[in-house]
Amino acid sequence: MLIVMEHGATQDQVNRVVRTIEELGYQARPMPGAQRTAVGLVGNDGRVDSSRLSALPGVKEIIHVTQPYKQVSREWKQETTRVTLPGGLVIGGDEVVVIAGPCSVESEVQLITAARQVRAAGASILRGGAFKPRTSPYAFQGLGLKGLELLAKAREETGLLIVTEAMDIEGVDAVAEHADIIQIGARNMQNFSLLKHAGRVGKPVLLKRGMAATITELLLSAEYLLAEGNHQVILCERGIRGFDPATRNVLDLTAIPVVQSLSHLPIIADPSHGTGRRDKVIPMARAAVASGADGIMVEVHPEPDRALSDGDQSLYPHQFTELMRQVEMIAEAIGRKIAQPLMTPIRQK
Amino acid sequence: MLIVMEHGATQDQVNRVVRTIEELGYQARPMPGAQRTAVGLVGNDGRVDSSRLSALPGVKEIIHVTQPYKQVSREWKQETTRVTLPGGLVIGGDEVVVIAGPCSVESEVQLITAARQVRAAGASILRGGAFKPRTSPYAFQGLGLKGLELLAKAREETGLLIVTEAMDIEGVDAVAEHADIIQIGARNMQNFSLLKHAGRVGKPVLLKRGMAATITELLLSAEYLLAEGNHQVILCERGIRGFDPATRNVLDLTAIPVVQSLSHLPIIADPSHGTGRRDKVIPMARAAVASGADGIMVEVHPEPDRALSDGDQSLYPHQFTELMRQVEMIAEAIGRKIAQPLMTPIRQK
Amino acid sequence: MLIVMEHGATQDQVNRVVRTIEELGYQARPMPGAQRTAVGLVGNDGRVDSSRLSALPGVKEIIHVTQPYKQVSREWKQETTRVTLPGGLVIGGDEVVVIAGPCSVESEVQLITAARQVRAAGASILRGGAFKPRTSPYAFQGLGLKGLELLAKAREETGLLIVTEAMDIEGVDAVAEHADIIQIGARNMQNFSLLKHAGRVGKPVLLKRGMAATITELLLSAEYLLAEGNHQVILCERGIRGFDPATRNVLDLTAIPVVQSLSHLPIIADPSHGTGRRDKVIPMARAAVASGADGIMVEVHPEPDRALSDGDQSLYPHQFTELMRQVEMIAEAIGRKIAQPLMTPIRQK
Amino acid sequence: MLIVMEHGATQDQVNRVVRTIEELGYQARPMPGAQRTAVGLVGNDGRVDSSRLSALPGVKEIIHVTQPYKQVSREWKQETTRVTLPGGLVIGGDEVVVIAGPCSVESEVQLITAARQVRAAGASILRGGAFKPRTSPYAFQGLGLKGLELLAKAREETGLLIVTEAMDIEGVDAVAEHADIIQIGARNMQNFSLLKHAGRVGKPVLLKRGMAATITELLLSAEYLLAEGNHQVILCERGIRGFDPATRNVLDLTAIPVVQSLSHLPIIADPSHGTGRRDKVIPMARAAVASGADGIMVEVHPEPDRALSDGDQSLYPHQFTELMRQVEMIAEAIGRKIAQPLMTPIRQK
Repeated sequence: MLIVMEHGATQDQVNRVVRTIEELGYQARPMPGAQRTAVGLVGNDGRVDSSRLSALPGVKEIIHVTQPYKQVSREWKQETTRVTLPGGLVIGGDEVVVIAGPCSVESEVQLITAARQVRAAGASILRGGAFKPRTSPYAFQGLGLKGLELLAKAREETGLLIVTEAMDIEGVDAVAEHADIIQIGARNMQNFSLLKHAGRVGKPVLLKRGMAATITELLLSAEYLLAEGNHQVILCERGIRGFDPATRNVLDLTAIPVVQSLSHLPIIADPSHGTGRRDKVIPMARAAVASGADGIMVEVHPEPDRALSDGDQSLYPHQFTELMRQVEMIAEAIGRKIAQPLMTPIRQK
Repeated sequence: MLIVMEHGATQDQVNRVVRTIEELGYQARPMPGAQRTAVGLVGNDGRVDSSRLSALPGVKEIIHVTQPYKQVSREWKQETTRVTLPGGLVIGGDEVVVIAGPCSVESEVQLITAARQVRAAGASILRGGAFKPRTSPYAFQGLGLKGLELLAKAREETGLLIVTEAMDIEGVDAVAEHADIIQIGARNMQNFSLLKHAGRVGKPVLLKRGMAATITELLLSAEYLLAEGNHQVILCERGIRGFDPATRNVLDLTAIPVVQSLSHLPIIADPSHGTGRRDKVIPMARAAVASGADGIMVEVHPEPDRALSDGDQSLYPHQFTELMRQVEMIAEAIGRKIAQPLMTPIRQK
Repeated sequence: MLIVMEHGATQDQVNRVVRTIEELGYQARPMPGAQRTAVGLVGNDGRVDSSRLSALPGVKEIIHVTQPYKQVSREWKQETTRVTLPGGLVIGGDEVVVIAGPCSVESEVQLITAARQVRAAGASILRGGAFKPRTSPYAFQGLGLKGLELLAKAREETGLLIVTEAMDIEGVDAVAEHADIIQIGARNMQNFSLLKHAGRVGKPVLLKRGMAATITELLLSAEYLLAEGNHQVILCERGIRGFDPATRNVLDLTAIPVVQSLSHLPIIADPSHGTGRRDKVIPMARAAVASGADGIMVEVHPEPDRALSDGDQSLYPHQFTELMRQVEMIAEAIGRKIAQPLMTPIRQK
Repeated sequence: MLIVMEHGATQDQVNRVVRTIEELGYQARPMPGAQRTAVGLVGNDGRVDSSRLSALPGVKEIIHVTQPYKQVSREWKQETTRVTLPGGLVIGGDEVVVIAGPCSVESEVQLITAARQVRAAGASILRGGAFKPRTSPYAFQGLGLKGLELLAKAREETGLLIVTEAMDIEGVDAVAEHADIIQIGARNMQNFSLLKHAGRVGKPVLLKRGMAATITELLLSAEYLLAEGNHQVILCERGIRGFDPATRNVLDLTAIPVVQSLSHLPIIADPSHGTGRRDKVIPMARAAVASGADGIMVEVHPEPDRALSDGDQSLYPHQFTELMRQVEMIAEAIGRKIAQPLMTPIRQK
C-alpha cells in the first residue's frame, strides 16, 4: 500500500503517516521524490484499515498494490531502477550491459586471459564462478575463496567489474567483500534464508530465475531482498525447464517485456545457460537485446574444449567479438547502446 | 539413406541405383544437383543392406541419415530450401518475410482494411482465418468458404499473397484453390491424415509446431509432407505450453537456430500466439528477427477491441507500422532485408 | 444455461421454454428427469437475457453454468453418465472396466491369441490399433480395414467388446461399423472436424487427453461431441508431456478426481502410454484404480519382444494376469468391482 | 565403481584395496555384507584405471556404476535401505508409514490436538512446519524454535515421531536436536551447501523432489547426503510443476516405481502438496500406496478453515480417519501393512 502525499506536504505530515503505519503494526518506507512524495506500507496489507491513513493531513491518495509483490512492482515505483555500480556503470539505464567470462574460475592464467579477451571485445563486467552449484557431488565444485581472489585480481588488471555466485550465507559475505555484484543462482532462487541475508549485505544482487519459477515467484523472491532494505537488484532470465532435449533449457525471452511491465527492476538474459549449446548462444544473445533486455550474460572461455564446466556452451573468444559487433547494431536499432567498460580499474581499499 | 554418385556418373548408373532401391522395397528419390548427384532411399532404412548399393557402378558413397527424419534433414540436403511463391516472393532466402493480418476473416470491410494497412506498412503476405480451430464449440468458428473468397479478393486488391489455415481434407482442397500457402495449425501438427493429404496437393504448406511438440516431432511431421512429394514446406514456431500463466504460451525462439541447424526447411515465428499479449508481440517479433527467423507472422486488426477472436494479441495498425520500422533495422544488423510486397496483384485464372 | 422447471410443470410449459430459447437464437435441450425437468440452452450464453426465460410460467429457476464447457459439466447434469455398451456392459457405473490388448493389430494369430489371453485374465474390452498415428511416416501405419475385420472376428470369437482408434472422417465411419467404441487419440483431441463427425455417428467415443491439454480443454473437446448430440463419451487420461526423460509421459492421475468433480462423464486411465515402460505399468494401473478411475486400458501382447509398435510398454500375458488379481483387490478396497466380460459374444447383424 | 571381493577374501586384502583406492586419489567405502564384501570407490570415476584394482589379490570383479549417481544406485547396493527410527519404526521395509499433521505449527493447542487426532487414526509420524519456506516475505514464516519445542512436546505426549523442515545450516542443527527426521524441502533440493551440512549431522533426512527436478537430479542430490556419510535418506515425491492450473502441481506417482528400480533408497509421496486440493488428497493418497510408495505424508489440521497456511489442502480429521481405513485395505491388496505408531513415547535425554 502506498500513501501518496499532497504536493507541498510537510515533513511533519510525512512523519505522522510513518508513525501511524507503525502503530498499525507495519513498516513504513518514506519515498521522497521529485514528482511525488509517498510512504510505502510494507507487508501483507490485506487487512489494513486505510481510512485511518487517508484521513491524515497532507495525504492525497492511497494506492493499493494489487500484486502479491509490493516494493518490486511498477505500481510502487514507476521509474525503472538504475543499479549504479563502481565507476558509474549503470544497469537499468539506456545502455545495455554485457557480462562475459568463463563458467568457472579455473586458474589465474585462464581467468586473466578470459578477462582481457572479453574486455577487448567490449564487455564491461566479468563473470566467473568461484563457488559452483553442481548437480553431482563428484563434479568440480569451484576454487572457492582462491577463485574470489583471482576475480579481484582480474578486476585490478582489466577494469572489469565482477559478478560471481554465492551459495550460502558465508559465501554471500565473502563474495560481497571481493565482487561488485552478488549472484544468487537459479537453484537458490527460493532459498529464502540466503535471500534474507543477501538483502542485508549492502551490495547489488543479480537474482536468477529458477528453472520452474513463474514471473510472480521471481518477483516475490526479489521482494525478499527489497524487504530487507536492498533495492539494488537485477533480475536474470536464464531458461526454464522444458520438455525438449534439443536444448538444455527453454530461454523464455518473453519474460523480459513481461517483467519490465510488472516491475521497475532491470532484467538481463543469460543465453548460455538458456540454450546450453554454443551455436545457439549467438542468435539468442542477439534476440535478448532485441527483446529489450537491460543486459546479457555470456559464457566465454579462452579454450572451451578444456573448460572444467559448461564447455559446450562457452563461446570461443572470436565468436564473442563477432557477437559484440552484432548486438551493438541491434541495440542501436532499438535506440540503445552497449555500455562501455571502465577506462581505469577501480582500486579496492 | 543417400546414395551419392561419382562425379560423371551416367544416367544409366543412376537408373540402376533407382531400380535397386525399388527392388529392396523402398522408394527412390533421384536428386540431381550442380555439386553432386545423389539418390535418396526413402523409408525406415535401419535394415537396408547398403553393400548391395555401394557396390553398384558409379556410386561414390553411402550417407546414413542419423536422424529419424530423413528428407527434411540437412544431412539429406545441405542448402536451405527456398519456397518460391507467386510473383517470385521467396521464403528461405536472404530476405525476411512479414506475414500480417487479422486472426479471423470477419467481413469484407474488416479484411480489405486490414490488408491495405499491413501492405502499406510493408507486409508481403496476408494472414486471416476462414476456418478457425476453436477450443470451445460455441466460439466463432470462422466464415468458411465465404472467408476464403474474401481473402482471394483481398489479394486481387492489394497484391498481398495469402496464407490461411485448413483443418480437414476438404478444407485443404478449398484453401489450395484460393490461397498461396496452406497453413496446418498447431493442434493439427500430428493429424497425420491431414498431413498426407496436404503433401499431395501441390501448394506450399506452413506447418506450425504443436504446443507440446519437440523439434524432432515437428520435423517428423514435416517429413510426412515431403514423403508425399511436397517439398515446399515452411515451419513455424508459435509458442509451446508452459507453466506460467503470465503469458499464453512460451515462445521458444531457440527453436529457430535449432531447426536451422538440423533441417534445410525455412522457419518463421509467430509472436502473436506465442505471447498472447499485444504489448509483448512487438519485442518478441524483434527478437524473432534477431534470432534469424526467415519470417514473422503477426496478428494485426483494424480495431482489435472489436475482434471476434484473439483481440488481446492483435496489434493496432500504427503499432504494426512502428514494428516494421524496427525489424527493418534489426534485419540489416544481421545482414538481411525485409522482403517487399509485390507491386502488382497476381491475377488468378 | 439451464432452465429448471417447477415440479409439476406441464409439457406445454416446457415447450414454451424450448420455443423461447430458439427464438433467442440458441438450441434447446429438454432434459426430463425423475428428480427435475430442465431445459438446457446450448451455446455461448454470456449475452442471453435470462429474464425473458425466468418469467415464463412453470420456470422455477435459471442455473448459469459457470464453466466454459456446458453439457459435460456436473452443473448441467449431476449424475455420472453411464455409457452402456452392447450386452449391457457399463462404463461409469460401480464397476471398473478393464480394456486390454495389443498396441497394433498385426495378424489374426496375434490378435486372437491376445484376445483370448486378456479375456481369460478378466478383461472385458479388447483394444488394438488398426489405424496407427505414428510420429514417423516410415513407421508401421497399421493394417487399416483389414485390422478392423480382425477385431470384429476377435469379438465374435471371445465375446470381448472392441475399441479402436479412428484418425479421420472416413476412419470414424469404418470404425463405427466394426467396433463398439470409437477412440479419438491424444494427437487428435483438438482435431475439431474429427470431433464434430464423431459426434454425429451414434457410437460411444473414447476421447483421450492431449499431451499438453488442460482439463478444461479436454472437457471442451468432449463438449464438441455432446454439442453434436453424442452423449456416450468416455474420457481417458494417458499421460501429459513432462520434462523428465525417465518416463515417456507423466501419467497425471490427479486428473481422475479432478474430472470427476467437474464433469459427469466417466474417465479411465491408460498407464501403458502414460509411462512407456512395462515395469511401471503394473504399479500405475493399480494406482489408477485406487484413484477412482472408471476403467483402465492396458497394452498386452502375446510376445512383446516381437511387437511392431510399443513393445517396451506391453505387458506379458502372465503379468496382466497378476495385475488383474491386484486390481480386483484394490477395487474392493474402495467399494467397487472389476466388470466381468460378456459370457456370449454379441453377433453383429 | 565397486570392487567386489572374492568369497573368503581376507581383511588384509580388503585393506589393500582401500589403500590403493586412496592412493588413486579417491575415497574408499568398505561394504562388508552377508552375500558379498565390496569396496566402493567414491567420486567421479570416469578416469580411474581399474586394472590396478582388478589385479589386486582377493578381488573378484569390478562393477562400473553406469549412473551419474553412485552410492544411491541399486547397482551399488541391491537391498532396499531400511531407515530405522527411534523405537524401531522402519521406513523402507514391508510396512507403509503414514506421516500426518498440520502444515505449520501454529500453537500448542493446535499441534497437540492435531497430533492426538492423527495418532488416533493410525499415523506414526507427526509433521508440522516450524521454519516455513514461503513464496512471499510477508506471509507467515513459522514459529521457529518455539515451533520445534512444541513438536518435541507433542512427541512426548503422543509417542509420534517428528519430521520437520530445515531451511538453512542453523536450522538443520536445531531440527536435528528436536526432531527424528530432518526434512529438506523441494525449494532447497539443490541447495548444495545445505545438503552437505545435513549429510554430516547424523540424523535421517527426508529429501523432497524439487518442482522441476528430474529423477536423476533428485538422486544426485541424495548422493550429496550419502557422499557426506549419511545413508539414512528417504526420498519424497511431492508434485512437479505442470501447465494446468486445475491443480497446484502434478503429482508424478510414476516416480515411485522409477526411483525404486534405480535406487535402494525408500520413497514416499506427499499428495497434499502434490494436488493442493483437499478432495483430491484422498484419492491420490490411495493411489500412492497402490503404486508401491513406502509411505505417505498428509496434511491434517484440526480446523483447516483457520489454518495459517495450506488450509485448502489440509484434511479434516474425520477425512483422515476414513483415508486410513482405505489405505489399510489397499496396502493389504499389495501384500503390505500400515506401520503402527509406537505404544510409548520415546523420552529424549
